[in-house]
Amino acid sequence: MSIILYDLCARDQSRRFSPHCWKARMALAHKGLAFETRGTPFTRIKEIAEGFSPTVPVIDDGGTLVRDSFDIALYLEDAYPDRPSLFQGEGGRSEARFVESWALTAVHPPLLSLIIKDIHDRLDQPDQAYFRASREKRFGRTLEDMQAGRDERLDAFRAALQPLRLMLAKQPFIGGDGPLFADYVVFGPLQWARVISPFALLVEDDPVAAWFDRCLDLHGGLGRAMPAAA
Amino acid sequence: MSIILYDLCARDQSRRFSPHCWKARMALAHKGLAFETRGTPFTRIKEIAEGFSPTVPVIDDGGTLVRDSFDIALYLEDAYPDRPSLFQGEGGRSEARFVESWALTAVHPPLLSLIIKDIHDRLDQPDQAYFRASREKRFGRTLEDMQAGRDERLDAFRAALQPLRLMLAKQPFIGGDGPLFADYVVFGPLQWARVISPFALLVEDDPVAAWFDRCLDLHGGLGRAMPAAA
Repeated sequence: MSIILYDLCARDQSRRFSPHCWKARMALAHKGLAFETRGTPFTRIKEIAEGFSPTVPVIDDGGTLVRDSFDIALYLEDAYPDRPSLFQGEGGRSEARFVESWALTAVHPPLLSLIIKDIHDRLDQPDQAYFRASREKRFGRTLEDMQAGRDERLDAFRAALQPLRLMLAKQPFIGGDGPLFADYVVFGPLQWARVISPFALLVEDDPVAAWFDRCLDLHGGLGRAMPAAA
Repeated sequence: MSIILYDLCARDQSRRFSPHCWKARMALAHKGLAFETRGTPFTRIKEIAEGFSPTVPVIDDGGTLVRDSFDIALYLEDAYPDRPSLFQGEGGRSEARFVESWALTAVHPPLLSLIIKDIHDRLDQPDQAYFRASREKRFGRTLEDMQAGRDERLDAFRAALQPLRLMLAKQPFIGGDGPLFADYVVFGPLQWARVISPFALLVEDDPVAAWFDRCLDLHGGLGRAMPAAA
């Protein structure tokens, strides 16, 4: 039986954009596991397994429910030890937490400010109302204000990726010669932007853009199969 | 026979402050290997093994010379596989490169601007002349200009450590329950500042300060045995 991945969706239900759901999706593909996705708007997450989780991703593996992208990766690693490893050892597991913390603090916040209104605009009506109210309350500004002047913030966003850029001079993936979950942790937010916003983030000759391209090609082009926002 | 570690020294030759040498020293201690250090000022690095390396650390392991802190860690891991691991697997080895790249781009540069004149002031005379000339040429400003106004840059430096801070809510070390080389990669620059500058970097209740304290206690208090700059 296929694993079910509850996956955030836009108004166009085939547009799956959540950075955290992409981390889980890439982890499932990395393990070579069969899975189906269930497009879930923000306002219907509470219907998954009687309110099991306030957020997606959630996976249902034959009745075993797991939430949170990192916990899903840990679950898959332990439940399917004979499949390709997401961490390649205890050190990789622990250090991936640092990569996650870096992405959550150095990549997600500046990136959100570049695309937050674009996210809103591609949501279905009930989700638009929820998204605007919750984000404007959290940040104390309108979505329009937050996204305004994004061209001026683009250099700072690109500079925030400098740790990845420097590392890419040494090796093609955070996982070394091939990708590990630590790569998906950074791929997630860049794929989020690609799928939900037409705003161009990276210049073509950026090593980060080349790495992102390599990630889009992984697992039969799973990431690339999701069309970029136009 | 003990491994020899060529280690940058200040005017007081017992003051060993190089962030990169501290990474190598902690790696040697982590492996439980006997080693002796040779205090080496900047201007005498060229005398090590007939100009083997333009920088320290350099180790001499019974005639095998290795330079660069990360390469030294890799060498020790492979040469002493039965000793405690510095990486705990291939994933830990690869992801440590990301941690190193983060430290080199997000921690070292802002930290250097907080302590660069203090470094100069604790060097011996020939090293002071070399350090001033090389750094002023590299950065296009005087050491005094670079360090000026450091109080105003302290908040930005502390904010740059946010990835580590967030991770520490999950686990006590980058290596998980215990330290790995990835921890030493970040310990190095903070120990650099502690040993060469009296400028206070962290507030007491910062989780990063608690982690740094734990690192100072490792391996019989190796880091703490080096007195802080007064």
